[in-house]
Amino acid sequence: MEKKMAEWGFKSQKRTVTIRDFLEIIKVNLNKNDEREVIHLGHGDPSPYPSFRTSPVAEESLINALRSTHFNGYPPAPGVSAARRAIAKHLSDDLPYKLSEEDVFLTAGANHAIEVILTVLARPGANILFPRPGYPVYEARAAFSNLEVRHFNLLPERAWEVDLDGVEALADDKTIAMVVINPGNPCGNVFTLEHMQKIAETAKRLGILLITDEVYNHIVFGSNKYIPMGILGSVTPILTVGSMSKRWLIPGWRLGWIVASDPNGVLNKSGIIESVLNYLCITADPATLIQGAVPEILEKSTKEFFLKTNDTLRESADACYATISEIPSLSCPHKPEGAMSTMIEINPSLLGDVKDDMDFALKIAREESVVIMPGTILGLKNWLRLSFSVEPAALRDGLERIKAFCSRHSNNYKN
Amino acid sequence: MEKKMAEWGFKSQKRTVTIRDFLEIIKVNLNKNDEREVIHLGHGDPSPYPSFRTSPVAEESLINALRSTHFNGYPPAPGVSAARRAIAKHLSDDLPYKLSEEDVFLTAGANHAIEVILTVLARPGANILFPRPGYPVYEARAAFSNLEVRHFNLLPERAWEVDLDGVEALADDKTIAMVVINPGNPCGNVFTLEHMQKIAETAKRLGILLITDEVYNHIVFGSNKYIPMGILGSVTPILTVGSMSKRWLIPGWRLGWIVASDPNGVLNKSGIIESVLNYLCITADPATLIQGAVPEILEKSTKEFFLKTNDTLRESADACYATISEIPSLSCPHKPEGAMSTMIEINPSLLGDVKDDMDFALKIAREESVVIMPGTILGLKNWLRLSFSVEPAALRDGLERIKAFCSRHSNNYKN
Repeated sequence: MEKKMAEWGFKSQKRTVTIRDFLEIIKVNLNKNDEREVIHLGHGDPSPYPSFRTSPVAEESLINALRSTHFNGYPPAPGVSAARRAIAKHLSDDLPYKLSEEDVFLTAGANHAIEVILTVLARPGANILFPRPGYPVYEARAAFSNLEVRHFNLLPERAWEVDLDGVEALADDKTIAMVVINPGNPCGNVFTLEHMQKIAETAKRLGILLITDEVYNHIVFGSNKYIPMGILGSVTPILTVGSMSKRWLIPGWRLGWIVASDPNGVLNKSGIIESVLNYLCITADPATLIQGAVPEILEKSTKEFFLKTNDTLRESADACYATISEIPSLSCPHKPEGAMSTMIEINPSLLGDVKDDMDFALKIAREESVVIMPGTILGLKNWLRLSFSVEPAALRDGLERIKAFCSRHSNNYKN
Repeated sequence: MEKKMAEWGFKSQKRTVTIRDFLEIIKVNLNKNDEREVIHLGHGDPSPYPSFRTSPVAEESLINALRSTHFNGYPPAPGVSAARRAIAKHLSDDLPYKLSEEDVFLTAGANHAIEVILTVLARPGANILFPRPGYPVYEARAAFSNLEVRHFNLLPERAWEVDLDGVEALADDKTIAMVVINPGNPCGNVFTLEHMQKIAETAKRLGILLITDEVYNHIVFGSNKYIPMGILGSVTPILTVGSMSKRWLIPGWRLGWIVASDPNGVLNKSGIIESVLNYLCITADPATLIQGAVPEILEKSTKEFFLKTNDTLRESADACYATISEIPSLSCPHKPEGAMSTMIEINPSLLGDVKDDMDFALKIAREESVVIMPGTILGLKNWLRLSFSVEPAALRDGLERIKAFCSRHSNNYKN
């Protein structure tokens, strides 16, 4: 058996490095003798922190779904009707037309929504356009499906807008889709309507599907409002990825969705909707129990709960931006105004023995017990992704440690 | 866009028909003017019925996990440590050695466990051996992964044991694994230790991985005890598929697992375990919240709860067997002694205008508002799969309707 299994070549398989992998590497690098608490600025999971505790409404809704005993059975493949309807109604509040239950497909979190979309789109020879920097789950799933990935740039000097000339240059007749993420992960930017119109027109001109990742929808705290790309669904058909994870601070509930914003029915006619439905019949389901809680959560959640999260994030984003501005070897080209992270550029020439972003992340983990994501994992060497959705006191502590680290490693440091 | 999308050929895709598909077809065939309740004998979801309500322990454990606020965040890819440890300990009670946390991988239900295993095993040219009749999710996932499927028979005249000569004849040097399901889905049989030893030795001799689906573990109510295949892990390495769904009557919680029973470490050395771990990094997760409830559920569940379920199922199985024995055109070759369904053979030559099993299922849906699964969906023409895990009163009613239907369609029927 052993010999035969060896011949199948399981050991020689490779895959794209994910954020999860890198966080494991960092963990090993932490200094166990440092008595200070580890500060996690490496990934966007605010749920462990008291300032980001989910709403009592979410907790009570889940208990009500549980007590009802109606949600212990298998769900329908596209999701529980009442949950799909409630999400359609909820998202329609921001749109010039009404979504229906049939436009909404429930998934086990947004990562699973990405898995479903990329699995359905993948076909021999096809390529897909992703933003750089981006969210590495896209790259990992595309690689798994043998979908060729081409990266267009987001432009730091233009508030991380899409380099649309770059998109035009990359696309060819084998390009099936492009992905944009708004509010921006990892850049913390928020697109203007004007820019979104240009994106939609570009997708239309190229004849490619527009996929918009709006996992951070409504998590905005700067001057630009959140506008769903779906309002441009009549320009070009759009698949939107969303979830309960960020806005309700419950990523561990694994409830996401794919929404078709397609008033002209193009995705139906082309068979894409049917392909999504078919794949949902043979892939994982989100827990029925959690689907059962969705209508009550959406109905009863208060504005105050969302405002509190956004206020906390605004203060945190401001603190990041202010501190980074004081550090000569780092720079943040655009003050974050949405989502839960920002990109910081390193100037290694001012940092003596710190070679690059990977080295920065490993050394600061060991020396300061701070976890931060190197930009290389997201396709941008010598950048860092800082997630500021942690407890504000811990964030301030972490920023001070970053400052101390950079100061100690700076070329002018005198011991 | 529309034209370009059409060229990608989404509309021409085909896929294996699943149980879910067939149930949709049947639904359309129901007679809306029949005022009687529809009786669902078509699939194994007992959770809607009062006699199969989950244990208060499961409900309270979930509420405790929720109130703790510790399980709102993303889970580790292979699952929450405490849940993996608890499942390892729980399953070790039936084994001659101890499983550890590292042997247990959590999935979003057993269907997702099947998805993970088949995705990991699939490689160009490989084939896999499945039982006939079986569980169609295996066929659907194998087809999706381009894994060639070969079917060995289960033998009704030998209590649905595996036709091991057939297995030997099917296997070649491109056979990667074989799947057995025990307690049996859909046959309701329970393997003896002697037969399990022969299966393990066959897998060993052929050098193929043995996958055992024990989703119905401990759901036995005849003379044969449930014995996990894992006790033979030192003969040949085994991957076991399991879940909370059936024993705790909560399929909608979507919590399953893959367990490696491999005391000699063959699966580790060959790279299969690493491949499973890699794939878990990029596929759906079971809800952290539900994982968080697992240790308390396993610790506090009482024997009485499980005994009650098994007693109810025994009575239901007996009722099925007795009624079917009274119907000349049907026969049940083996009284069910485990799991939640049984296979019934049709003799169409005694049933006048009922052509075959598909026709039987469509006509009885329309005429008697009874949903039953045609064997063709499971690879056995002119058989029916009857799931008896419904409310006992509804089952009795359903059996009477089956009797009336067969009597009305019998060749000797006089109006």
